[in-house]
Amino acid sequence: MERHTYASAGVNIKRAEAFVDRLKNASQRPLHKRLWKASGGYAAVIPVTDDLAVALTTDGVGTKLLLASEAAELETIGIDLVAMCANDLICVGATPTAFLDYYATGQLLEADADAIIAGIIAGCDQARMPLVGGETAELPGLYAEKHFDIAGFAMGTVTADRLIRPDSILAGDAIVGVASSGIHSNGLSLARKLVAPDSPLRQELLKPTLIYVPPVLELFDKQPGCAKGLVHITGSGWRNLFRLHPTIGFQISQPLPLPPIFQELGKQLEAKEMYKTFNMGMGLAIITAAPQAVIEVFVKYGFTAAVVGLVTDQAATVSICSEPHGLGVPRVTLES
Amino acid sequence: MERHTYASAGVNIKRAEAFVDRLKNASQRPLHKRLWKASGGYAAVIPVTDDLAVALTTDGVGTKLLLASEAAELETIGIDLVAMCANDLICVGATPTAFLDYYATGQLLEADADAIIAGIIAGCDQARMPLVGGETAELPGLYAEKHFDIAGFAMGTVTADRLIRPDSILAGDAIVGVASSGIHSNGLSLARKLVAPDSPLRQELLKPTLIYVPPVLELFDKQPGCAKGLVHITGSGWRNLFRLHPTIGFQISQPLPLPPIFQELGKQLEAKEMYKTFNMGMGLAIITAAPQAVIEVFVKYGFTAAVVGLVTDQAATVSICSEPHGLGVPRVTLES
Repeated sequence: MERHTYASAGVNIKRAEAFVDRLKNASQRPLHKRLWKASGGYAAVIPVTDDLAVALTTDGVGTKLLLASEAAELETIGIDLVAMCANDLICVGATPTAFLDYYATGQLLEADADAIIAGIIAGCDQARMPLVGGETAELPGLYAEKHFDIAGFAMGTVTADRLIRPDSILAGDAIVGVASSGIHSNGLSLARKLVAPDSPLRQELLKPTLIYVPPVLELFDKQPGCAKGLVHITGSGWRNLFRLHPTIGFQISQPLPLPPIFQELGKQLEAKEMYKTFNMGMGLAIITAAPQAVIEVFVKYGFTAAVVGLVTDQAATVSICSEPHGLGVPRVTLES
Repeated sequence: MERHTYASAGVNIKRAEAFVDRLKNASQRPLHKRLWKASGGYAAVIPVTDDLAVALTTDGVGTKLLLASEAAELETIGIDLVAMCANDLICVGATPTAFLDYYATGQLLEADADAIIAGIIAGCDQARMPLVGGETAELPGLYAEKHFDIAGFAMGTVTADRLIRPDSILAGDAIVGVASSGIHSNGLSLARKLVAPDSPLRQELLKPTLIYVPPVLELFDKQPGCAKGLVHITGSGWRNLFRLHPTIGFQISQPLPLPPIFQELGKQLEAKEMYKTFNMGMGLAIITAAPQAVIEVFVKYGFTAAVVGLVTDQAATVSICSEPHGLGVPRVTLES
């Protein structure tokens, strides 16, 4: 069996991370000292009064665009775009407030553009965040005729007392996992190489990313402080857990059920490679001392949620036990 | 002599405008009623307290990217990106506060990425706006190997008393024009077809867009209310003046000198087509009752600025008189 990796699909995570490090150094400026430190770096948090800050984030949907184009199904890619941004905002404690899109194409095709925007608006409704602006660019020569790219930019607001400060996380706190709809919008460069164009699972790859905003806002409103840390599981899979705090670890004993698409991908990929690339059925993780309260809110909004494990004091280690997901290995350990 | 138009270069403004109209209708939501009405629609202005709002805008640099890539000169395209956003923010009265970039490429090339980011950071310094975040996406298959796109997202803050409300503009107010550095970042799809790759003017096309932030902020600070309206002259050229207010017109009697690149383009384009596509030497227009005070601030910061004409009561008309720019026509009139 040939073993694939994310790098073999053309994505070099190490090179990208080195670039981002250089970028952080280059952009160090005194003004940065004014920023509030945001949990997981999911958004830049800029104070505008003593008590109020604006959270900003930007994201795209990666090569899921190519799949959507190939399948001529552009209706939901806009939901993915909004989801990638809105789910980041809630991880710092912010309430999504406004969204803008950048949409660039070689030639503006009415039906395509309308489908994409309809998806963006549907996503904005789900995230309770109005679309307030955007840029539509017709760039002949830069994009091939039917090719396009989209990027999203989202703003949220957060008060000082709501800002997520993961310093309060303790060993023994529960990890509540909230189910994903499938692959969401990460790891597609690899996945689309492994799922044949005529496979019935190809359709699974296009399922829109779940938007976790309404239950999380209810949690913030009705049970302040209950969510000690939130992790949007995006690119780099469960390694996103490392974003929370450098001195804690994670022991996953009962992962959520694996969506069919990952079972298929598991036939062709090492288990470890999968956990560090995909969400593996868990789109959002919440660290809490009151897991039942958290689960109830998510279930009320129609999401699947369960305790999947515990925080440990084994710094910067995700330990996934007991033949995880039936992938045929006794144990998987990720280190930051 | 063959006559070229922007449409013949592959950019269909009418189709794009129709799409944006559909977009506005589709995205009407009750939350929009909360937005403050921003002059010229240059940014979405979202109140966060009774007295304070956040201004948001997004833009790209269009096909100027292609020219920069062809010339392998990526050092200043980031300045253009920041300029397109920052100059929009000041038109609603906002102080630029934070910038995020979206950078997508088929394959991340270190030297290219570093050059692009160095330009973005230089632009952010000029605009006094820190780079606080961004997304770097390696998307094999979506972009050809060395191709890339960049988009910018900018946030500003504006108090209620600083918000530009063009209702105070009166017939007889002066139009102060501030010089551009050349073509800036609009109309390049057309211009690059008309300037031969071996022409010495090709280099002119890559000059970075001027960033007008420092003098405009000083104007806002020291002479509140002096700038009644600001117009960043971008795509659609002098038709941007129409964005200010539907009941006023503009008589341009003494335009700023025409940069050499436009003189060259004038040999191949109708004068009217030029005024509705390019900035024609004027990157920013300011409507004021105190033109000398405005000019002094810009000159102090090293910009060229002069009274170029007057506001009229001839609604939605830009009238450019007296053989404008020596382009061989007695008069050019643009209507909205």
